[in-house]
Amino acid sequence: MSSSSEGETQLPNRTSEIRKDTVFGRWVVFSPARSRRPSDFKSKNPNPTSNPTSCPFCIGRESECAPEIFRVPPSTPDWTIRVIENLYPALRRDLNPPHTGSDQAVGACRVTGFGFHDVVIETPYHPITLSDLEPEAVGEVLLVYVERVRQLKALGSLKYVQVFKNHGAAAGASMTHSHSQIMGIPVIPPSVTTRLSCMKEIFDLTGKCSVCDLQSDQDLMINSSTHFYAIAPFASSYAFEIWIVPREHSADFHELDHSKAMDLGGLLKLMLQKLAKQLNNPPFNFVIHTAPFDLSPSCVPYSHWFLQIVPHMGTIAGFELGTGCYINPIFPEDAAKVLREVDG
Amino acid sequence: MSSSSEGETQLPNRTSEIRKDTVFGRWVVFSPARSRRPSDFKSKNPNPTSNPTSCPFCIGRESECAPEIFRVPPSTPDWTIRVIENLYPALRRDLNPPHTGSDQAVGACRVTGFGFHDVVIETPYHPITLSDLEPEAVGEVLLVYVERVRQLKALGSLKYVQVFKNHGAAAGASMTHSHSQIMGIPVIPPSVTTRLSCMKEIFDLTGKCSVCDLQSDQDLMINSSTHFYAIAPFASSYAFEIWIVPREHSADFHELDHSKAMDLGGLLKLMLQKLAKQLNNPPFNFVIHTAPFDLSPSCVPYSHWFLQIVPHMGTIAGFELGTGCYINPIFPEDAAKVLREVDG
Repeated sequence: MSSSSEGETQLPNRTSEIRKDTVFGRWVVFSPARSRRPSDFKSKNPNPTSNPTSCPFCIGRESECAPEIFRVPPSTPDWTIRVIENLYPALRRDLNPPHTGSDQAVGACRVTGFGFHDVVIETPYHPITLSDLEPEAVGEVLLVYVERVRQLKALGSLKYVQVFKNHGAAAGASMTHSHSQIMGIPVIPPSVTTRLSCMKEIFDLTGKCSVCDLQSDQDLMINSSTHFYAIAPFASSYAFEIWIVPREHSADFHELDHSKAMDLGGLLKLMLQKLAKQLNNPPFNFVIHTAPFDLSPSCVPYSHWFLQIVPHMGTIAGFELGTGCYINPIFPEDAAKVLREVDG
Repeated sequence: MSSSSEGETQLPNRTSEIRKDTVFGRWVVFSPARSRRPSDFKSKNPNPTSNPTSCPFCIGRESECAPEIFRVPPSTPDWTIRVIENLYPALRRDLNPPHTGSDQAVGACRVTGFGFHDVVIETPYHPITLSDLEPEAVGEVLLVYVERVRQLKALGSLKYVQVFKNHGAAAGASMTHSHSQIMGIPVIPPSVTTRLSCMKEIFDLTGKCSVCDLQSDQDLMINSSTHFYAIAPFASSYAFEIWIVPREHSADFHELDHSKAMDLGGLLKLMLQKLAKQLNNPPFNFVIHTAPFDLSPSCVPYSHWFLQIVPHMGTIAGFELGTGCYINPIFPEDAAKVLREVDG
């Protein structure tokens, strides 16, 4: 027995199960046979300490970056957060937007790669990670996302905005300096269509928003704050996946106000700290699932934004590629219990 | 200029584009800005030479494996292929099957983890990979898949079967000895539902099977054989993704006969050799997309099986996680040209 697992409780002995969730309508296979103790889940790719000597995201090296969109506070060399263009954008703001309705086309379809791909530098200092920041500073980063999403919506040429963070090379980060990304997309992405259609089906049947309904299962609850709660979702696709959900029904992330952003900042920081501690500083992604820009009023009752955090603990292999089902080695009620008990 | 790229043609200078395919209805972002030469695509995780001293899949060590289902040829110690149970199955054959129709349930749903999870050991000899085998021997492996799929169908308790191969640790292989896997699943997986619904939509509109229609674009063609062709699909989610497609309309992989299996064996071997040569022996997956077991006769005209090969060249990161869209750094017409020209 390793020292880290001394006195550690075994996970309950559970039988394999297949579950479908109420948000994406995905089937997930829970197959706990191989793992028995919480400490069996440790990242094999913990993030190394990085070398800041060549980092253009560091304060004082702004001229080496792609153009700046805005900074906080504005017009000062002592910025705390900067939003800049991505030097290697996946979508390009200099192309023409596709025609309206092209994302509804049946059959093979191609449109220009118009869109926006921005980077949010979350801190001027290289060794600092997002979860090192004070809760209020994490809240400020969230408010920067809100501001940029509102700007992109105002353009009128985009259908969806994806806010996401890749932390660690294995999670897709090409820069070690703490940052996140915002992509404005001219079509409605497949995951968004699927999510809204699954949530509509449940709303039509039950009259309930399936995200509002997530707070009913106390076994899955990890922590909560004034306006948000963090859960391990019932059909988590990934081991130790966490969703942070606004208590109050809200379709659009960009409606987040200052006091809720500060509150969410604290809960997000706590969840990232808990994952880092429990899983040995794993690479991770977080993504914000929100409503498309042109959400019809009839969809508002079942559209509810949330933030999903996914530690990178395994590999997408042939089974997942073929079926779209994931195999998860830990039940969410066990992951929730482990994460409830670990200190932030 | 590195020696490997000496005299190498640059890839054409293309502008970012977003494409939707006709099989999965997925949007893919083509963003070629960062890569300019075919040799820029080399695996950073080539498969190491493995150590066979502790391998239970090697001939003579059969007693260390989970129970055998069948071997080829039957009842001989000098087998060439064995089908065995997975020692750590994700689904368990000893549980009760879920009730019929449970996969149609709306809302949160859980069923037992009933199912089958088998391993096909493709060769008795550790250093041999699938693409080292003679075309006929690859064909024999395909016929073993067919036989096992027919057995699983005959049980009557499964909805779908996923045949897949993980090659290399980064692609999810936990054993280095060449093998593939077959999972019998008691629900219809989400990718299968999405694929059939997308293909139905196109069939209803055009009267055509969208997989039959794939052979019309010569720019995407890589190679072909008597009964099959290999293409880089129009909206490839992954760099150098390949689909091998039966020319003749056919819903079910398990209808593959002996002569077609031999023919497919040759083309599959050629494609794996080309990927290994062009991309520096990358980890890869292949998966067989086929019809669910209980396919209604009305779906037969637009259901068409094919084999998808995906080299692991990048990471699934926040954007893909959030949107279900992939970012591909090489256009399929360029990947097809490169793969047409590389020797097998």
